[in-house]
Amino acid sequence: MSEFTAVDVIRTKRGGGVLSDAQIDWVVDAYTKGLVADEQMSALAMAILLRGMTGPEIARWTAAMIASGERLDLSSVARPTVDKHSTGGVGDKITLALTPLVAACGAAVPQLSGRGLGHTGGTLDKLESIPGWRAALSNEEFIAQLRDVGAVICAAGEGLAPADRKLYALRDVTGTVEAIPLIASSIMSKKIAEGTGALVLDVKVGSGAFMKSVDDARELARTMVELGGAQGVKTVALLTDMSTPLGLAVGNAVEVLESVEVLAGGGPADVVELTLALAREMLDAAGLPDADPEAALRDGRAMDVWRTMIRAQAGDPDAPLPTANEVEIVCAAEDGFVAEIDAYAIGVAAWRLGAGRARKEDPVSIPAGVVLHKRPGDRVRVGEPLYELRAEQAARIPAALAEAARAVRIAPDEPAAMPLVIERIG
Amino acid sequence: MSEFTAVDVIRTKRGGGVLSDAQIDWVVDAYTKGLVADEQMSALAMAILLRGMTGPEIARWTAAMIASGERLDLSSVARPTVDKHSTGGVGDKITLALTPLVAACGAAVPQLSGRGLGHTGGTLDKLESIPGWRAALSNEEFIAQLRDVGAVICAAGEGLAPADRKLYALRDVTGTVEAIPLIASSIMSKKIAEGTGALVLDVKVGSGAFMKSVDDARELARTMVELGGAQGVKTVALLTDMSTPLGLAVGNAVEVLESVEVLAGGGPADVVELTLALAREMLDAAGLPDADPEAALRDGRAMDVWRTMIRAQAGDPDAPLPTANEVEIVCAAEDGFVAEIDAYAIGVAAWRLGAGRARKEDPVSIPAGVVLHKRPGDRVRVGEPLYELRAEQAARIPAALAEAARAVRIAPDEPAAMPLVIERIG
Repeated sequence: MSEFTAVDVIRTKRGGGVLSDAQIDWVVDAYTKGLVADEQMSALAMAILLRGMTGPEIARWTAAMIASGERLDLSSVARPTVDKHSTGGVGDKITLALTPLVAACGAAVPQLSGRGLGHTGGTLDKLESIPGWRAALSNEEFIAQLRDVGAVICAAGEGLAPADRKLYALRDVTGTVEAIPLIASSIMSKKIAEGTGALVLDVKVGSGAFMKSVDDARELARTMVELGGAQGVKTVALLTDMSTPLGLAVGNAVEVLESVEVLAGGGPADVVELTLALAREMLDAAGLPDADPEAALRDGRAMDVWRTMIRAQAGDPDAPLPTANEVEIVCAAEDGFVAEIDAYAIGVAAWRLGAGRARKEDPVSIPAGVVLHKRPGDRVRVGEPLYELRAEQAARIPAALAEAARAVRIAPDEPAAMPLVIERIG
Repeated sequence: MSEFTAVDVIRTKRGGGVLSDAQIDWVVDAYTKGLVADEQMSALAMAILLRGMTGPEIARWTAAMIASGERLDLSSVARPTVDKHSTGGVGDKITLALTPLVAACGAAVPQLSGRGLGHTGGTLDKLESIPGWRAALSNEEFIAQLRDVGAVICAAGEGLAPADRKLYALRDVTGTVEAIPLIASSIMSKKIAEGTGALVLDVKVGSGAFMKSVDDARELARTMVELGGAQGVKTVALLTDMSTPLGLAVGNAVEVLESVEVLAGGGPADVVELTLALAREMLDAAGLPDADPEAALRDGRAMDVWRTMIRAQAGDPDAPLPTANEVEIVCAAEDGFVAEIDAYAIGVAAWRLGAGRARKEDPVSIPAGVVLHKRPGDRVRVGEPLYELRAEQAARIPAALAEAARAVRIAPDEPAAMPLVIERIG
């Protein structure tokens, strides 16, 4: 019999106490092994959400989640390794172009990504729009591709932070997702276990993000930067705006197309701006401050790495992507300026069109999504297209229309420009 | 698909909001049916524990738990019905003598009781010391005995408040027992569902009770008195001291023997005092303020009902009770007064001797327990017996000895007497 019981650990945190290192090690290990039941861990998660955790508690919790599985050794990769993580947003396809771009500048990028749930999309879902591309790699394939190509985006293996995998699924159904200690330890345990040498965090703020306020986002960013440093991973965070979708495309295939435009030297200005800002932070963290990512976009080196990376995972970078049968174009009913396009409402509209999933086991629609024709700040005249909705089934259009209509506000005066990068923490 | 989701209900309470009537009805019903999972209900229970509930929320929650099962109709019983509930303590055998005593005075007492868990004993476990006695009655047998004998102590049927049965087991393993809204609704849903017309609550305060402070006990008592009134059950509460065990006997068979002494007109003064105080409250609540319970003890009427009640459930009131093989008598090491006998430590000692169970499915030892030779306030001399420990196996004695030794404090001066009944709420 153990000297600990789940009820004692729960009662400690419930009363606002600090969990000891031994309590944390025990409860994370026992939960992974099924000795602490789901209903006990969910009560503890709620107590953590409402009572909080100290810095040392979060660090120990993260270390215990890393220790629940394997920690990859990337020392056979000759280049410096650096990864990026976004806390999730609407139209956030940055990883797609950023990964090959940073690799083209001399670093190796080990991107273990996830799938979408709710109103935010998932990088793996987007890449699966490309015929043949496969998300699952063995650890050996992952390391080999990182060595040979310098860029890999794939699903995290079952062996990395299994405690987090189990806890994340539990939090999702028990109303305990929004606890900063649990969000920070979840993200950082996976990223540290994957073996990256440096990490840049894109912490989103605004209606389309999990963090609605700058204060919460800053607290989350600081917590993660500290956790990374304590585990020997140089970590920097940018707080970036997610009150409006990134770029013009929100969905799966449509976001791949927009990413390829960026790699071809074009693409929406905000996507290019954030891609370059994150690339510079990553290259700096990797010890390559003199690299020039703007040149790598311009001269096609980033595109070359993209094509090699997609082919390495059996994808065909030249294959046409599926298109939607049903397209509904919505036009402006008045003259003026686009004052606001709410990221959350557009995310929900795309989700209703089929781009996202309601349950983990659901498939996503490849061609479904929202494509904006205007961005906040653009001038618009009556009858000009504002955005279009794309779906595989016509029945999905009406509910999405209602959501999207709520997202867009037109006003007589030009709105003030909002900065995309709000703050740097590192 | 329902208009509610468990996560929305959890998030409402997590944020300190008030659950709507419809949310409460839905979540209690869906949990009973297994549509809300244990891990979701435990997160909600923790949110309720930390965020609290308003009076109307507790009332609705209680009503929803009653509505999860059947509500007995005792209208075929000619006498007024009145029940008692104790929040649990050490040596609390009051129900055994009180039930036949109140019946002997003209009321009918429908006692649905429980089993012990942890350091507190259970009325059913104690009565099962009597050869032949059976705890399980059908609803028809229960009502018939209530009509014919006026007194019945038995296990609650599966059909009464099944939501509470399920939730109680969950709270026990998830560190969510100590939430006043959940304690109050658990107790009151069962008592209201059993159909009693009036109810007297014995809310224990002190080391051996679940409520350690008078403030918490008062809040629990007030909450329950209001809940009873709202459901048409006249409800009164006494806050009573549980810093020291009740009487001299703590266990199963030993508590039956002490109860029979009380019914015979003897017994420890504190047990008699509390039995009479509760009997007077019950008879008053039943509309029989002129009944004389003291006379019913003295003239043997209460003992007659006890014998009839035990026989009605196949028990032999004349059979000798099993005795313990192992008896260890502990004597005073100094002269003085008994200043303190800690109820919790004595409860744990009895539990270690085998009188209680660690898990629901464990059996209890019939003869095991602690028998005090002295009570707080008694004078004691070196070498005089203080208490004895009884067990079926000698191996159980040492751990119990260590607990019991912590319980007793001897001091040179006579301690101040503590009142047994602290406060009346009704």
